[in-house]
Formats: sequence, C-alpha cells, structure tokens
Amino acid sequence: MNPDIIKERQNATFDVEKLTYILDGGLEKTKRRREIESMVFSDPDFKEEDPNFLSRSERYDQAVRKSAQMILKLREYGIADPEEIYCYKTMVNGNHHEAMGLHFVMFLPTLYSQCDPQQSKKWLPLAESFQIIGTYAQTEMGHGTHLRGLETTATYDPATQEFVLNSPTISSIKWWPGGLGKTSNHAIVLAQLYTQGNCHGLHAFIVPIRDMNTHVPLPGIVVGDIGPKFGFNEVDNGFLKLENVRIPRENMLMKYAKVEPDGTYVKPPSAKLTYGTMVFIRSLIVGESARALSKSCTIAIRYSSVRHQSEIRPGSPEPQILDYQTQQYKLFPLLATAYAFSFVGQYMKETYHRISGDINDGDFSELPELHALSAGLKAFTTWTTNSGIEVCRMSCGGHGYSRSSALPDIYVEFTPTCTYEGENTVMMLQTARYLVKSYRQAKAGQQLSGIVSYLNEAKQHRVQPQPVAARPTVVDINDLASLVEVYKQRAAILVELAAKSIQQEMQNRKSQEDAWNNSAIDLVRASDAHCHYVVVKLFTDKLGEIGDIAIHSVLSTLALLYALHGITTNSGDFLQAGLLNVPQVHQVSARIKELLSQLRPNAVALVDAFDHHDKKLNSVLGRYDGNVYEHMFEWARRSPLNATEVHESFHKYLKPLRSKL
Amino acid sequence: MNPDIIKERQNATFDVEKLTYILDGGLEKTKRRREIESMVFSDPDFKEEDPNFLSRSERYDQAVRKSAQMILKLREYGIADPEEIYCYKTMVNGNHHEAMGLHFVMFLPTLYSQCDPQQSKKWLPLAESFQIIGTYAQTEMGHGTHLRGLETTATYDPATQEFVLNSPTISSIKWWPGGLGKTSNHAIVLAQLYTQGNCHGLHAFIVPIRDMNTHVPLPGIVVGDIGPKFGFNEVDNGFLKLENVRIPRENMLMKYAKVEPDGTYVKPPSAKLTYGTMVFIRSLIVGESARALSKSCTIAIRYSSVRHQSEIRPGSPEPQILDYQTQQYKLFPLLATAYAFSFVGQYMKETYHRISGDINDGDFSELPELHALSAGLKAFTTWTTNSGIEVCRMSCGGHGYSRSSALPDIYVEFTPTCTYEGENTVMMLQTARYLVKSYRQAKAGQQLSGIVSYLNEAKQHRVQPQPVAARPTVVDINDLASLVEVYKQRAAILVELAAKSIQQEMQNRKSQEDAWNNSAIDLVRASDAHCHYVVVKLFTDKLGEIGDIAIHSVLSTLALLYALHGITTNSGDFLQAGLLNVPQVHQVSARIKELLSQLRPNAVALVDAFDHHDKKLNSVLGRYDGNVYEHMFEWARRSPLNATEVHESFHKYLKPLRSKL
Repeated sequence: MNPDIIKERQNATFDVEKLTYILDGGLEKTKRRREIESMVFSDPDFKEEDPNFLSRSERYDQAVRKSAQMILKLREYGIADPEEIYCYKTMVNGNHHEAMGLHFVMFLPTLYSQCDPQQSKKWLPLAESFQIIGTYAQTEMGHGTHLRGLETTATYDPATQEFVLNSPTISSIKWWPGGLGKTSNHAIVLAQLYTQGNCHGLHAFIVPIRDMNTHVPLPGIVVGDIGPKFGFNEVDNGFLKLENVRIPRENMLMKYAKVEPDGTYVKPPSAKLTYGTMVFIRSLIVGESARALSKSCTIAIRYSSVRHQSEIRPGSPEPQILDYQTQQYKLFPLLATAYAFSFVGQYMKETYHRISGDINDGDFSELPELHALSAGLKAFTTWTTNSGIEVCRMSCGGHGYSRSSALPDIYVEFTPTCTYEGENTVMMLQTARYLVKSYRQAKAGQQLSGIVSYLNEAKQHRVQPQPVAARPTVVDINDLASLVEVYKQRAAILVELAAKSIQQEMQNRKSQEDAWNNSAIDLVRASDAHCHYVVVKLFTDKLGEIGDIAIHSVLSTLALLYALHGITTNSGDFLQAGLLNVPQVHQVSARIKELLSQLRPNAVALVDAFDHHDKKLNSVLGRYDGNVYEHMFEWARRSPLNATEVHESFHKYLKPLRSKL
Repeated sequence: MNPDIIKERQNATFDVEKLTYILDGGLEKTKRRREIESMVFSDPDFKEEDPNFLSRSERYDQAVRKSAQMILKLREYGIADPEEIYCYKTMVNGNHHEAMGLHFVMFLPTLYSQCDPQQSKKWLPLAESFQIIGTYAQTEMGHGTHLRGLETTATYDPATQEFVLNSPTISSIKWWPGGLGKTSNHAIVLAQLYTQGNCHGLHAFIVPIRDMNTHVPLPGIVVGDIGPKFGFNEVDNGFLKLENVRIPRENMLMKYAKVEPDGTYVKPPSAKLTYGTMVFIRSLIVGESARALSKSCTIAIRYSSVRHQSEIRPGSPEPQILDYQTQQYKLFPLLATAYAFSFVGQYMKETYHRISGDINDGDFSELPELHALSAGLKAFTTWTTNSGIEVCRMSCGGHGYSRSSALPDIYVEFTPTCTYEGENTVMMLQTARYLVKSYRQAKAGQQLSGIVSYLNEAKQHRVQPQPVAARPTVVDINDLASLVEVYKQRAAILVELAAKSIQQEMQNRKSQEDAWNNSAIDLVRASDAHCHYVVVKLFTDKLGEIGDIAIHSVLSTLALLYALHGITTNSGDFLQAGLLNVPQVHQVSARIKELLSQLRPNAVALVDAFDHHDKKLNSVLGRYDGNVYEHMFEWARRSPLNATEVHESFHKYLKPLRSKL
C-alpha cells in the first residue's frame, strides 16, 4: 500500500463503510453486492487480457464468449433478480459493454410486453433458450429521433397472408442497433405498416435475419457491422437492408394493434402504453451518469493523492497534486456532483417503481411529470458527466491519456448516453414543453402540484427580471434550504423568460412553431435551470434521511459545494434575475475555497465509499493500493507492440531507406 | 452533388475563394498549398486503407512506411521550406500523426541548436541521412511539468571519460517520448548531471539505444512502447530504463555548458537561450487549434445542411437540421471561434518571427511578453477547441460516434495538446504570473507597454467591483471597438482581483507561496479573461485589413458573434464588474439570435473557405459533395468485421450454448 494513500485514509473524519451502505441502499444490499462481485473476480473463467490489447474482432469474440458464460453462470448461481443480474454483469463487463445486451434489454422485454398469447407461446421459449438471439431495429441511417420519419415499410399481402418488408431508400437502411451486425438471428423491426392501401404508422415485426442453424443471412437480407466507433468495440452495432422480405402475418406483434387475415387493421386501445420503457431507461441513465462520474473521480482523486509534482514552497518536497487549489477546484465539484447524481438516481428508481405501480392500477396521472423529469435529467446528468469525465482524465496529466488509466474507456463508453435513448437537446426541449405548458396553466389560474408547483407563484410577483438594487436579498449562502429556494426562483424566472419569448415571437406574426424554434435557446436554458434545481433539492432532501453525524456533516459540505459551485458557474443568471447581489457572488467564491480545504482530508475516503472494485475500475491510476507506477510499467510491457524487440517495419522501411538517400 | 448543399452554396453572399486567400495569407500561398496537396492525393503510393480498420501494429507499420516515403518524395520534389513540408505532411497524415515526428521536431532541432562544432560534424550527417533516427527523452513516469524533479542521472567518470546514465527509480523511467518505443536508435536524454560530487541540474546527452545495424536494444537499455492510448495509434510513445549505460564524454551536448575531461563543469553563458523552442511550439499549437476546430465545424455544418430531421411546422417536409436554432447556437459560435483562432494563429506566427529576429540581434526585451502570451493562448485555444470538437461531434447525432465521421479521430488526436508542451493549468498560471507582475509594476508607477498596457489604468479608477447602478454603461453592444474595451476592462478587473487575493492571503500571515496557491482559481480566471480579450482584439484588428466589402461584412458578423457569445457565457463577470447592466445582457442574448439568422445562409460557404480537402478531412459526414449516406454504407461494408458473413464466435460460443441450457 502506498504510504500517501494510507495517510489519506487515516485522515478521514467519517466511517467509509457506513457511507457505502447509504449509497447502496442499506447494509444488506452492500453485502449482497460484494458477494456477487466476488463470484466474478474469483472466477477463473473471467480472467482475460485487457481488451485494449486486442483487435476489434478479438474484442467482439471475447465479449460473445463472456455473454455465453454469463448466461450459464447466472443460471448455475440462481441469480434472477434484475438488480443482481445487473450487478453481476457490470462486474464482468468492467468499463465495456455486452455484445448481446439488446437481446436482454430490448428484444425480450418487447416480446413480453407486445406479444399476444399465441405469440408468447411460440417466441418466448425460443428467445429464452437462445435458439433465437434478437435485437431491436428501430433507427435508420436517415432517422433517429423522429420516429414518424422512419421509412422502412411492411406491406400486407392478403393473398399469401404475409407482410413484405422493404428498405425503399439508402437512408432507410436500419443502422445502429446493437447485436444486429453479427450476433442476432432475429430482429424486431419497426416499420410503417401498409394494408388495404393505407399507412397506419410504425408497428413492430419479428423478422428472421439469419438461418438458425448456419447463421448465414437469409435471402433478401443484407446485414453487417456498421464499422468502428468511438467506443463500443465489443458491440456489433449493425445495418439491415430488407429486400422484399416476406414474413407470416403472425410475425407482427399483435397484443395491441392487429391486422386481420383479410388485411383489416385494428387500432390499439391506448397510445400511452409504450411510454413506460422509454421513461424507465432514461431514469436508469441518470444512475449510469452517477456511476461513470464516481469511477472517474475515484481514479483522478486517488491518483492525485499519490502523484507528487512541482513545488508550492521552494525547497520543500514536491506536494501531492491534490494539494493544489486548481486541482481541488477541478475535482471536488465533480465529486460533489457524483454524490448528487447518485442520490438523484436512487430517487428516479424509486419514483419509477412507485409510478409503475400506479400505472398498473390504471392511474396515469403522474406519468407526464415523470416523463418530463426523466427526459431533462437524462440530458442534464449525461452532459455534466460527459464533460466531467474529461476533466478527470485531463487532471491526471499525461497518464490520463494512457488506456491503462481506464479514463479514455470510461469516456468513450459513456458519451453515447448523450445521444441514444433521446438526443439531449431534444430531451431538454421535451422537458421545456412540459414546463411552458405548466407555466401557462398556472397563469390561467390552475393550481399546479408536484415538482413544478413553484410555477404557481408565476402569476404573482414576477414581471421582468429587475436590476439588483430593487430586489430584496435575503439569501443565506451557507443555508441549503435558502439555496434550494434561489435555484427554484432562477428556474421560475427562466421558464417565464422562455414563455415570454414565445409570446413575443408570436406577436411578431410568427407561427406557433416558428416562435417555438426561435425561442429554443431560452427553452433549453429553462430546462437546464429546472433540472439543476431538482438536483440541488433532491441532494438537500437526502441529507434529511442521514442519521450519522459525521457522514451528515461531510455530505452537507458536498451539497453546499455542489450548490455554490453551480451558482458561480451560472452567476450571470443569478445576478440578472436579482436573486443574488454582487457582494454575495464574491462571498460565494470565497466560500467555495473554504469548502475545498474542508473537503481535502476526506477526498480519498469519499471516493473509497463508492466502493468500485479494482477489477471493475481496471485503472492503474485508480488502484486502491495507490501503487501506480509499478503497475503502469508492467501493463506497458504486456502491450502487443512489445511482443517483439524489433518491429518488422524496421526491416521493411527504415533500413532500406538508408540506401535510397 | 447533394441538392441541399448546392443551394447552400448559391445562397452565399461573398466570394469563398477570396476568403480562402485571406486565411492562407494570399493568393500565391493558396495556389502553392493546393499544388502541394495535389501531389499527395494524386500519388498512388499514398493510397491506403482507413487506419480505423487496422490493428495497432498495422497502423504503426503503415505510418513508418509513409514516413519513409515522405522523406524520399520531399527530396524528389525539392520541397524544403518548413511551411511547405508541413503542408505536405498534414496532407499525407490526414487526421493522424507521424511515427517519426520527434526526429524532425525535437531531435534534429536540438542537435542544430546545442551541438558544438565537432559534435555537429559528427552527428548531423548521421541524423540527416537517417542512419540515426532520434527522439527527445525528457518526461519520466513520475515527472512531466516540473523539470527540476526529473530523476535520471548522468554521472561523469573521469577515469574513462564517460558519463554513466541511470534510471534510479521506477518513477524515473523515461515515459511518453514519441518514436522512442520502436522507431529510434538514439535518444537525446535529459538527465541530472553529476560531476566531481556535485549536481549541476538538467543537461542533454546523446544516448545510443539500439544497434544501428540490427536495431536490437543495446546492453543496459530497457526500451519499449508504453501501450495503447487515447489516439496517437501511429506513434510509438515509449519508455526507456537506463541501467549503468556508459556514453563518451563527447555525447553531452556542449554548445553552452561543458564538462572538461577532468570533470570540471563549465556553466552556460545564459539561461534564456533554451526558451525559444518552447515558445515557438506553443505558438504553433494556437494554429493547430484553429485547424482542428475548423475541420470539425466543416464536418458538422456540411452534415447539418444535408441532414433532415423532425419537423418545425407540422405537415411540412423535415427541415435541414441547420435550421434549428439550437443547432445554430451549438455550431455558429464555434465557427466564429475557428475564424478567431485562425487569425490569432497568424498573429502568433508573425510575432514569433519578428521577435526571433530581434533575439538574433541580441534584443530579448519582447520575449517575456511573447512567452506569457503563448503559454496562455496555448491553454485558452486548446481548451476551447477540445470541448468544441465534442460539441461538433455530438451535434451530428448518432453518426458523429462512427469513426467514419472522422470526429472521434480529430478529438483523440487533438486533445493531448491540452497537456503536452505545458499542461494547460500550469500555462494559465504562468501567464497569470506575468500579469500579476505587470500589475504590480503599474501600481508602483511603472509605465507598461505592449499587450498588458491596459494594466496602467489599474492605479486610477478601480478599487473594488461596484454594484451595477453605480457605473456608467456606455457600451455599444453592436460596436466591436466598444466590446474590445469591455473585454479589456474585465481582464483588468480580474487581474486586480487575483492580485488582491494574494495580498489578502499574505495579510492573513500566509507565506507568499501559499498565498499564490490559495489564489490559483482567481489567477486562472484572470489569465483566461486576458486571453479572451486578446482574441477579441486580434479578431477585430484583422477586420481592419480586409478590403472586400462582402467578406468584411460576414467576418464582422462572426467577430460580433464571437464577442457577444463570450459575454453571454461569462455574463456573471461582466455584471459583477458593472461593465454591463441587466438590460444590456438581455439585449446581448437577443442580438445573438439575430446574428445566428444572419449567418445561416453563409454557414456552408464559411466552412468551404477553410478549404479542407476531402482527403484530409476523411469524413463521410463532411464530404464536399454532401453525399453522406451512400458513402457511409460503402465504408461500413469495407469494415473488417464484415470480411466473413458468419463470425467464428457463432460456432465457438453461441451454437454450443444452446445444448448446454
């Protein structure tokens, strides 16, 4: 164990273990998580070479092998609870993804939710026994976000009682679905349904794409891998071109909408039912943000505690780089953010489960709010995390660029969350739509409830943001409740500003749609402020649940840092709205410096509490024992370019060059 | 040609070709650049597979082959001017780096500048004929920025008249030098010189590391590749462990400092002489920022003009995504930044050459200012570009993640500029040191000249930032000269704030060094504001040189957008300092929206003017002809995972799995 990191742990003012229980949701959960994790890291079948040393094809191969092994092991160990499966899999996958992920996350759930009883009887046993491996083919080369724009067609032919599927244009080629390129033999294909000469919009069809025995693509199917990406090397994201592919009528998923044998179309009873999965996945992504950021902070902060560099005082030994104020200013606000997002992730999971219960009871009343919240928070947390990972990486100096640090892997595997499951700007605008609608309802006298209830105050005191002097400033910058209030007012003012921009554009004879587009900058800004408020509020609320005094104290410091740092980086908003005055903004800056010093002795303990196992981090810089340099050297020597002392290029090019000059 | 992009080009209000001349520095330069570029893209020897389809070893191999070819071709064509060589090489290397880069950029220049006459006679012919391929081994595993901390030792042994080189610890192993791992047979090693029992600090030694005939590492040399990184796959960044390696006394570079045969150390006459190269490379990086950002904007803006998605008005065809305000707000400020940095890059190059002339005449007076400016601007431009590339990438939706877009490559090849040649935060603090020193001189009554002359006003009117109402606000947000003035005042106030923070810390009985560290956040902020002012000023100055009315007009719009966008994103600073009032900040937001609309018709033409050849961009999304989808499909089909229809993992894992369940 590195002596610096031992000293860091001795300096902590709280019980790390107890904080881990809080993050996991209780002692029992921590215990079980560690049990599952130890099944993986003590299992010789999961010993493997660093994927960074392998070719793309080898990485894919290794990922398929692990997928197959996991299926067998999970059955062997009787692990069936979704959270436990998730825990097992993340331990196996480390910083990378699973080749067969979409079979579990999209293909099976879609079968469960959209098969009618006969279909269930036919398809589920095949899919559950992996005779069928499937994927979910929605996005096309020319269309991602806008589902109505998808071009793939499924035309019903009553003569043979079949659907004929086609990719009518280049841009209609299915593009991106994970596992489509090489792994899957079936796909659920989303296509525009045509029957009796009418288009009935998007519907889902089960399409066999490869022979179940030979795995060779079927006639009319052009399928393959879309090529190397930024990350996701383990996943065969694929393309699929359909050329007059015929499938039986029964392959349309018919739990809701139907096509009768004669071609008569039967509408689904409600459109709301497909809403849920999307909301669920977006809620999960909030938790993924917390995990990616907490891993990155763990690596950067542990490394900063063992790395010595330069000098603060001449002649003294080189300080740990964590002693530099600039380093603390880079990392501690991100550490606070990782905690904030962890608690928001917990909240989203709980809320989803609560509301799912309501939905099963036929009560959809809270769904719009959850939908708006999950969209905005998905964007807010992934954007913040995305840039935060890179700040962590660059705070490690040169070594952050080495794949041995794991930070490049964490980044490239995380960054797609900003785009998939709803592009972030589109997500922010969806939340804005809800906020503006709520604002208008409040203006019209309706009493709002839930998270947007602050907009009720809209009709009263606010007209235009006013110069600083005119506003009372009773904010206590050391009081979280007071800061939550300030964030709330900022959100309210920015929602109002966006709504007024739309109104003004319409007064300038713009159509409602153009007015919306011409106000989009303000709308995104309003959503962002709303989400920021929610995060500050949930972090503050969480403190109320924490009994342990030492932990309460350090988490309060983190929450305060989170709130004040957000004020500094958005000080223009708070000044513009007159919510804070100039001396207060200066006080905030000074207070932040104090908080950085206060957090300094607990920094390593705070990342330890995330309890990311070395095997999961897979980072020489983030090792628990702090023994960075030895392991970096060892890792480098294993690198494939060192397999031979002299690379063949010397004999091929460099030696011959001499004689040509 | 895609019809959308044809229409875009027809809408332009200025002559693209003429703007290209301005960016290149004149018609003749453009002509010559294109001549050189066409030598490359018409040369069958440089036809190659996309490096993204190759393994690390194959990529390195291909890069060495190209390096060797380039050496021959440049001689064949008689290209010897450094700028023309640079132009040729960037065309060959595309978005990637050269394996042998350090031989040209560091090894040869160090020999030229630090060999004494006998040494020149011995080493230069060997290095210029590539008998010797060399690198520059400075950084160690445990030390990058802080040169005094380097641990490698060179101990003089007068008995044999040799130096004995050692890596005394793990952390002293040389780490990161490009070309060290596999390519080089010699290295210039920076080591602490010991002679007659005393340490004389860092000196440079020529160390043979591989046999010149067999290329096998020499005795006592442990050398290899440091393993995969985030980018730089073509480069064999290496490690070097020295175990009692003996080199003749004459292998110490002795133009300045010397060790006599008996071990007597002779000091160098001046320390300033090694300053120049560093300043030069940092100045060049400013230009690299402009190039990387202009490439990224070219890709994102061209793609946004041919990509259609969603709907603004229901029922209408899907609009080009460039019509969304949010998309414009992401891309146009970056486009303006790319122009700003291009002109700043020109300025830095000119200034460097001017001051180099002075230095050769023995006049060092302007060097400190250039040193401070190049450090800060290196950090300012690379940070901005680094995050800007990612904004461009994510503005392309899913396809931005594909390696076919080139944006992931541009990012990973660019991001190390934030760390190498001076870590950015350290750079910002170096500039801050100069600013605070200048501020104190001004306070002490000295009259400053040059770029910091604005600090002369420090002693007069500013004491503390004041509330908004108390300040006169005569800023015209449509007048660039007025905005330059506001940026200048912001910089002055933030320099003063940082200086006062140091003063206050010292009043609290902190040592000068701790006071500095406890003010580091403010110091970085001051540097940032200073650099921002310089960029706004240089962009504005450039407009004065432009005669063409149409081009002047569109560049003025860009400059205004650059300045106003900077105000919005830092509005807190301007409000806090009382430089702008709240209504003005609102006006700025409104004005920015107008500028986005104004720029919309010229967006494609403005990126065309950068004149990045398709071969250099290597992006299916950024193609000049806009034919994106066909080429993406074609690229994907060439991807190595599609070499076989059925991947072997099916037979190895998936088929056997069925029987085990």
